[in-house]
Amino acid sequence: MDERVREHAELLVDWSARVEAGDDVVVSVAEDAHELGIAVAEALGERGANVTALYGSSEVSRAYLKGAEAGDVSFDSEPAVDRALYEAADVVLRLGGGRNTTATADVPRSVRQAYATARKDVREARMDTDWVSTVHPTRSLAQQAGMAYEEYQDFVYDAVLRDWESLAAEMSHMKEVLDAGSEVRLVTERDDAPDTDITMSITGRTAVNSAASVAYDSHNLPSGEVFTAPYDTEGEVFFDVPMTIDATRVRDVHLVFEDGEVVDFSAGAGEDALAGVLDTDEGARRLGELGIGMNRGIDRFTDSILFDEKMGDTVHLAVGRAYDACLPEGETGNDSAVHVDMITDVSENSFMTVDDEVVQRNGTFRWEEGFEA
Amino acid sequence: MDERVREHAELLVDWSARVEAGDDVVVSVAEDAHELGIAVAEALGERGANVTALYGSSEVSRAYLKGAEAGDVSFDSEPAVDRALYEAADVVLRLGGGRNTTATADVPRSVRQAYATARKDVREARMDTDWVSTVHPTRSLAQQAGMAYEEYQDFVYDAVLRDWESLAAEMSHMKEVLDAGSEVRLVTERDDAPDTDITMSITGRTAVNSAASVAYDSHNLPSGEVFTAPYDTEGEVFFDVPMTIDATRVRDVHLVFEDGEVVDFSAGAGEDALAGVLDTDEGARRLGELGIGMNRGIDRFTDSILFDEKMGDTVHLAVGRAYDACLPEGETGNDSAVHVDMITDVSENSFMTVDDEVVQRNGTFRWEEGFEA
Repeated sequence: MDERVREHAELLVDWSARVEAGDDVVVSVAEDAHELGIAVAEALGERGANVTALYGSSEVSRAYLKGAEAGDVSFDSEPAVDRALYEAADVVLRLGGGRNTTATADVPRSVRQAYATARKDVREARMDTDWVSTVHPTRSLAQQAGMAYEEYQDFVYDAVLRDWESLAAEMSHMKEVLDAGSEVRLVTERDDAPDTDITMSITGRTAVNSAASVAYDSHNLPSGEVFTAPYDTEGEVFFDVPMTIDATRVRDVHLVFEDGEVVDFSAGAGEDALAGVLDTDEGARRLGELGIGMNRGIDRFTDSILFDEKMGDTVHLAVGRAYDACLPEGETGNDSAVHVDMITDVSENSFMTVDDEVVQRNGTFRWEEGFEA
Repeated sequence: MDERVREHAELLVDWSARVEAGDDVVVSVAEDAHELGIAVAEALGERGANVTALYGSSEVSRAYLKGAEAGDVSFDSEPAVDRALYEAADVVLRLGGGRNTTATADVPRSVRQAYATARKDVREARMDTDWVSTVHPTRSLAQQAGMAYEEYQDFVYDAVLRDWESLAAEMSHMKEVLDAGSEVRLVTERDDAPDTDITMSITGRTAVNSAASVAYDSHNLPSGEVFTAPYDTEGEVFFDVPMTIDATRVRDVHLVFEDGEVVDFSAGAGEDALAGVLDTDEGARRLGELGIGMNRGIDRFTDSILFDEKMGDTVHLAVGRAYDACLPEGETGNDSAVHVDMITDVSENSFMTVDDEVVQRNGTFRWEEGFEA
């Protein structure tokens, strides 16, 4: 076994999920994440945890949903086993890495939504655990990224196997600035596309130092971003990083905000999918997240949000639901059934200010060498 | 997909497990049982059941146990997730079919036993569901059987895809004879090995018509045997079908019984493994089962007890634990930590009597054409 698989597993168990002896751990293993599953099971055994392995197969999910469609059944809103297992779990580790990223492409959206709606309680029980999502590098994900398999393995481990403690310390600078700030402004000038010039309020909001550990309210490995929940957005923004929404390729999204809401939008491709997102509900036209990518182990876009949004030299905004961790106790932020991230490259002709002080210019932060105010 | 995979899945869900809409079904999918998992998930979706898929990987189990061994941990006797999930389940379907039948060969017996002991409550919660075990034909199982892959697929589907209703009707004759009988005698004469001549009491015991359905107290697919719980065994018996005990090949076992107990034994190979079984505890030297194979879809031995003990023209005896279903309400039969089946060919120079009336001669039953009393 590649030694990096074991390092990945130990990082996941110890740094990310903070597993201790006696913990009840659910490990969901995707079709081709077997090898990571082995390494994780061995680490959990060594630490004296209990393990329940789920089969996280998209093809099995597709078969179940197609069967339900054929049988015209309504989904049970109280699936007893899934409820019971997540309620009993301390930790849930999701090891992604299937055989086909479009395995459920022929399941009608209505069927998927009905299933998701019926399983709201199960999802909430899962989110109440110390859950962490990661991926094992598979050929299917390499293909999605347009990369060779061995090249993609190097890419994943460069992103995952970092010194998280020191990245957390670095990201804490950004968190401090955002926590103390009132207004964020992002400006990027482009020759061949609309300029970005957008301002957002962040007064009273708390930034998350997303350092790939439940100890930091962070549930992704890799992570490496600082994010908060902005409001009262004004201005316009152009997203030059392509993305996939509901199996549709979407690129060159341009959004115009007034009084916190999207009042105009366009896309170079996939505009219908974008419109579908924005029309979901009232909250879908307001921002739920401002995130600043700070993982310099990620050096390219791979059409996977787990990696893309964490990349250094990028900023992302999400329309839709805000995360509770960013909100004052008891306050509800922007609510929506969707949360769709869109990413913009800030490596050139770009700066971000917090309360009129530049904190990042052309991708370089104030506390980094080479920064020019 | 091979149409037989779908037929297998539908038989499992409808005939064997009797799944109904709203049932909470746990499906354990072995590493190479993916395709059967797909077909089962689709059938369960169509019938409106809830599905939780477990990853039944021997390699993941081995990694966990090796990790625990390295960490010198003691196993938790109250694993909350596994308890909760089996207690909430109506049905548990185990789809065997791994990649290596000896995947856990390097886990010390003491570690496996400690794990099994700690999980007694989990096992009992699983046995309290409508559970059914089956296998998907894999290359690993084909190899264990000494067969080509496609040849093995044909073998499995010939054994599984039977007219179970009519086999159940045929097997009910055997059950009637055993339920009404007091003493069974089995005699086989051999030129090149010790003769068999053994008698057992069955007074007060109930035979199970094991027709591959929970409706018949039968939890294997395929099945096709009638079994009961004998006692007061006298005489000697020779088992000419080889078997594997604890990864050791055992053949040509000869047992001598007096007053219900094994008083002498030998084996042509693997005698130490046999001695290990017989020395486990007091009940390990007494019989727990007499089973009569009646599945004529199984035409050869494949070193898999799921198939071997069901084969027509065979009788098997197990030392160790008796099944509750064979005992009068409230009575405990022979108790032991082990239950090891041993098989004898009865196709030639052989007969079985119940209360001195011949019920099977040279493999042919009294109600079959060609029977000679």
